[in-house]
Formats: sequence, structure tokens, C-alpha cells
Amino acid sequence: MDYNALATQFTGFYYNQFDSDRSLLGNLYRENSMLTFETSQNQGVASIIEKLTSLPFTKVIHKVSTLDAQPSGENGTILIMVTGSLLLDEEQNPQNYSQVFHLVPEGGSYYVLNDIFRLVYGC
Amino acid sequence: MDYNALATQFTGFYYNQFDSDRSLLGNLYRENSMLTFETSQNQGVASIIEKLTSLPFTKVIHKVSTLDAQPSGENGTILIMVTGSLLLDEEQNPQNYSQVFHLVPEGGSYYVLNDIFRLVYGC
Repeated sequence: MDYNALATQFTGFYYNQFDSDRSLLGNLYRENSMLTFETSQNQGVASIIEKLTSLPFTKVIHKVSTLDAQPSGENGTILIMVTGSLLLDEEQNPQNYSQVFHLVPEGGSYYVLNDIFRLVYGC
Repeated sequence: MDYNALATQFTGFYYNQFDSDRSLLGNLYRENSMLTFETSQNQGVASIIEKLTSLPFTKVIHKVSTLDAQPSGENGTILIMVTGSLLLDEEQNPQNYSQVFHLVPEGGSYYVLNDIFRLVYGC
């Protein structure tokens, strides 16, 4: 599978799972995985899932605006940058965000080694 | 040097050089380097510099809003995500952008293996 198709498939799965039940995202991470979510940093599956599930919203809808991918080494890793918007709970106004995923191949699939998320505020 | 300090130093150097004379950024790339700039993709030093110098503006000022870094493997590579704004030529309104750099160590320094840039438009 080419890296663009894989990036599209991965992000589609990731945001669908995040928006339906983000407590189940743990399969995508490993003990060496890192999450930077705004100013907080977490490493490892339990710590990352604890962070994601403790975020102060119940409903969330991600909408991807741009999705770019590049191979990031000779070992099959893939770098993905997403820009998009998300709508929280009963809010009327979506917020812009940017997110990076660094995917590492493992047994025919991929896991997330690096995950960096930031809201993007107006200029 | 820790990866946060290195990310700060690198991005400071990169944007200063970009904003003063972006034709001189070639030292930061190698033949296997990739640039995604909006919808265009370039690989290799000459192709990347040709793209950067052909961008249709003369003056540009980058302003970094957030800068996050993570080690991205066991070989000393570093992943950086920047969100910020840029002001072009005589325009009055800055535009938001997001950019990812994947840095690879080489002889005591680093080069850019992956570079993905996107403007971030309002929701």
C-alpha cells in the first residue's frame, strides 16, 4: 500500500474511533509511544489513554481539512500531518487544530510512535 | 543537547534564514529530503530550493506560536511541529500555518529529512 493511501486509511480510522469511543485507541500505541497534547506530554499506552479519556468533553467531531504524508526513513515509517477542525459537545463554533502522527510498521500493521496535537488559534 | 533545545535552536535558525534569504536554506536538506509545500511535492536539495525561491512573495516574516518536539526513534532523529503565522510582502493580515520538520543527525549536526508545510485557514 502506498503511504498516501495508508495515511488516509489510518487517519480515517483514528478520528472515527476518537469520536465514537477514544478509550479504545490504546491498540494504536506502544510503551515507547509519545503524545504531546497541547502543553501536556505522556508516554506509554496507559498514560496516553488516561490523558485522552480525561479530556473535558464528551462529544467531539473531527473534520480533516488537509492530510499530507511522507515516508520518513528506510524502515517503512510514515510521517503524517493533518490540519482540520473539531467541534466539541454543544459548541457552535469549530476550532482549528494541527496534528502529526509518526507511524512505525509492526507485523503487517502500524503503530503510533509520535503524536503531537495543537489547537490553532486565529492570528 | 536535549531535543527541545535543539528544536528551538533549529527553528530559530530556519525561519531567520527563510525570512532573510531563503535561497541559502539548501545546507539544511539532502538528496533524500522531501518537501510538501501546500499541494506541491519536491525531493532533493535543488528541487526544494527551486520551490522555495519560486514562491510568489519577496518579504516574509514567520512568527512561531507553538513549538513541540519529540525524539522519533532510537537513532537520534527528532520530530518538530510548529504552528505560527506569517506576514507576506505588504499584506496587513498574517496567515496561520503549520509545519513539521523531521531532523536526522549527521556528523554532529542535523539535516531535514521531512518538511511539510500547510497554511491553516479559518474554520
